[in-house]
Amino acid sequence: MLTGSGEQVAPIVRHVHAGEGYDAVVDWGGLGHLPQYLTQLGLPPRVFLFTDSNLQKLYASTIIAKLTQAGFEPQLYVVPAGEASKSQQQLSAIYDWLLEQKAERREAIIAFGGGVVGDMVGYAAATYLRGVPLIQVPTSLLAQVDAAIGGKTGINHPQGKNLIGAFYHPRLVLADPATLLTLPPRERTEGWAEVVKYGIILDAELFALLEEHVNVLSTFTHPPVALLSQIVARCIELKVRVIEEDEREQGRRAILNYGHTIGHALENVSGYGEWLHGEAVSLGMVAAAALAQAAGMFSADEVLRQNRLLKAFGLPVVYQGAVRAQDILAKIQLDKKVVGKRVRWVMPKRIGEVVVTPMTDELVSLVVTGFFAEKRP
Amino acid sequence: MLTGSGEQVAPIVRHVHAGEGYDAVVDWGGLGHLPQYLTQLGLPPRVFLFTDSNLQKLYASTIIAKLTQAGFEPQLYVVPAGEASKSQQQLSAIYDWLLEQKAERREAIIAFGGGVVGDMVGYAAATYLRGVPLIQVPTSLLAQVDAAIGGKTGINHPQGKNLIGAFYHPRLVLADPATLLTLPPRERTEGWAEVVKYGIILDAELFALLEEHVNVLSTFTHPPVALLSQIVARCIELKVRVIEEDEREQGRRAILNYGHTIGHALENVSGYGEWLHGEAVSLGMVAAAALAQAAGMFSADEVLRQNRLLKAFGLPVVYQGAVRAQDILAKIQLDKKVVGKRVRWVMPKRIGEVVVTPMTDELVSLVVTGFFAEKRP
Repeated sequence: MLTGSGEQVAPIVRHVHAGEGYDAVVDWGGLGHLPQYLTQLGLPPRVFLFTDSNLQKLYASTIIAKLTQAGFEPQLYVVPAGEASKSQQQLSAIYDWLLEQKAERREAIIAFGGGVVGDMVGYAAATYLRGVPLIQVPTSLLAQVDAAIGGKTGINHPQGKNLIGAFYHPRLVLADPATLLTLPPRERTEGWAEVVKYGIILDAELFALLEEHVNVLSTFTHPPVALLSQIVARCIELKVRVIEEDEREQGRRAILNYGHTIGHALENVSGYGEWLHGEAVSLGMVAAAALAQAAGMFSADEVLRQNRLLKAFGLPVVYQGAVRAQDILAKIQLDKKVVGKRVRWVMPKRIGEVVVTPMTDELVSLVVTGFFAEKRP
Repeated sequence: MLTGSGEQVAPIVRHVHAGEGYDAVVDWGGLGHLPQYLTQLGLPPRVFLFTDSNLQKLYASTIIAKLTQAGFEPQLYVVPAGEASKSQQQLSAIYDWLLEQKAERREAIIAFGGGVVGDMVGYAAATYLRGVPLIQVPTSLLAQVDAAIGGKTGINHPQGKNLIGAFYHPRLVLADPATLLTLPPRERTEGWAEVVKYGIILDAELFALLEEHVNVLSTFTHPPVALLSQIVARCIELKVRVIEEDEREQGRRAILNYGHTIGHALENVSGYGEWLHGEAVSLGMVAAAALAQAAGMFSADEVLRQNRLLKAFGLPVVYQGAVRAQDILAKIQLDKKVVGKRVRWVMPKRIGEVVVTPMTDELVSLVVTGFFAEKRP
């Protein structure tokens, strides 16, 4: 049961039945207990701590001190902040560094950061010596509710995002919502797109809770400790249920891609610099809802509720950029969710329920063209 | 029950309980039925056939014609023959090609070749779009009895062999022992090292059968159809039993590395050009047996039987090269089987039984130094 109360909460633990099985923990302030969590896993003392250049300044010395005090031997590697780090070049540099350190098969890699660090360091952990223990410590809202859960790891290719990767489950996911307080506002905001997505695809109650508390959640003026922890834990619970059913994205897991077909295409066509992932997903959900509405599947009222909530979180709901609709349509054809040349669209029927279905090229073309032509200021 | 009879044999199918579950089939002449095997798997018509430049000349046009006749749309990609193809550069070229072809998630990759093709194309299949269906069609003895079984895929790094990779199971392994007839003699010979290894680590009966038939097996003057099929199938059975117990090489799977600790070090130190993998493993087994004997674990008689059988297959049993023992000893420290700085040695107690145990540095140093110093012509 979700509530809007503001009191302190105990760690919320979800055991994930995937891979070898592992815990996903939501623990406000849990970063301070990272050494204890690692100790419980029985890992060798030497650990390889990866983070990005932004987080390094805020957290690295504290984490290293705590790990060292607890008897660990942390080795730090810092990647440049930003999506450009999810590259083959950065991956090769990480392999080289691990080999220089003579990192061994049982020694753990800690991915401390947002989606970029989680995806690319996770992929390095998946493939170095054919896989070493991985600890995901997601620090962004996007990573806590989505990227760090489900075992997807990977890097980008000039042709598109996440085209190279592996399914690889961590030994632990430790999400500390207190880290969200240090996020730049735009990065915090983008995370709500995935949270709203869970409401649309699976959970009308969560959606209503977000509507009720959107002001305090979007501004963070009074950190809503319990509420935020509960929302992160609820999103993890929803995602875990889906991936436990469908670990390798053969079927039901596709619903998690609501808003991502157009979102990914937009990110790719605009070159990964203009839009953050969550912003692109927000626009993708607006376009997908319009498609569902045009097909008579989703009511105008509910489209409005979705778009209003996204907007209240500060997310973009109207496209105001320079890409051409035909480039978006072409890119969708290469999308990973393509099966036998037909795109499977995740279409809402009502808030809390979606179906996965092909749509006619004509309707897709009409809606996408309309959406990307509409360049209101 | 193994026999030495020479009659034709029906396909031998072993269902492997690993990954999503798949069949490993030994089928003399089965290459001619590849389209039927693929059809049974319900794959989309377009398939991506990978092979090397040697096998292309012998087989590509026939396979493509058969696949096309059966309604498939094979797309051919040829890698240069040889270990140098297991590189990051070749892997990147494969990704680029698959993306050019707009290869999709359900379309299969066929790895037709020896260990190099199987490992590196298997790794491409494991990581392209986070994994696409993989069909292993091993053509060398080494690949049929070892490399294609167990889900190991990967590439080399300048620092060492197979340092980057993934565990990824195929949808089918089709081993056609008739392809062994077209192997260059040296490549056929090296494969027997792994077969002898299975005898030492798990199967005294197999070892005795090899001793009995080593002449016909090593020369191939009269292709021993049934015997060869049975031996390949027996090796697959032995390996599958081990990997079903230990899919990710946490424990028992280590026994498969008998002869490989020194073997890998030798390959690495001598630069992967001088020794074929099986030759290095043969030398590694000779050295490992000497180590076990020096430790009082393995009798002189059985050491002699092992080395005599290796020699009868045409494999090297005395080191005659230029590498220095200290380089081998240093390299062993980076070996993937290292745990907490102690190498776990696979030591025979008798033919058909091994234990995994640390050994003292002094004894290892003594035996390795002796082995690599002994440069008889």
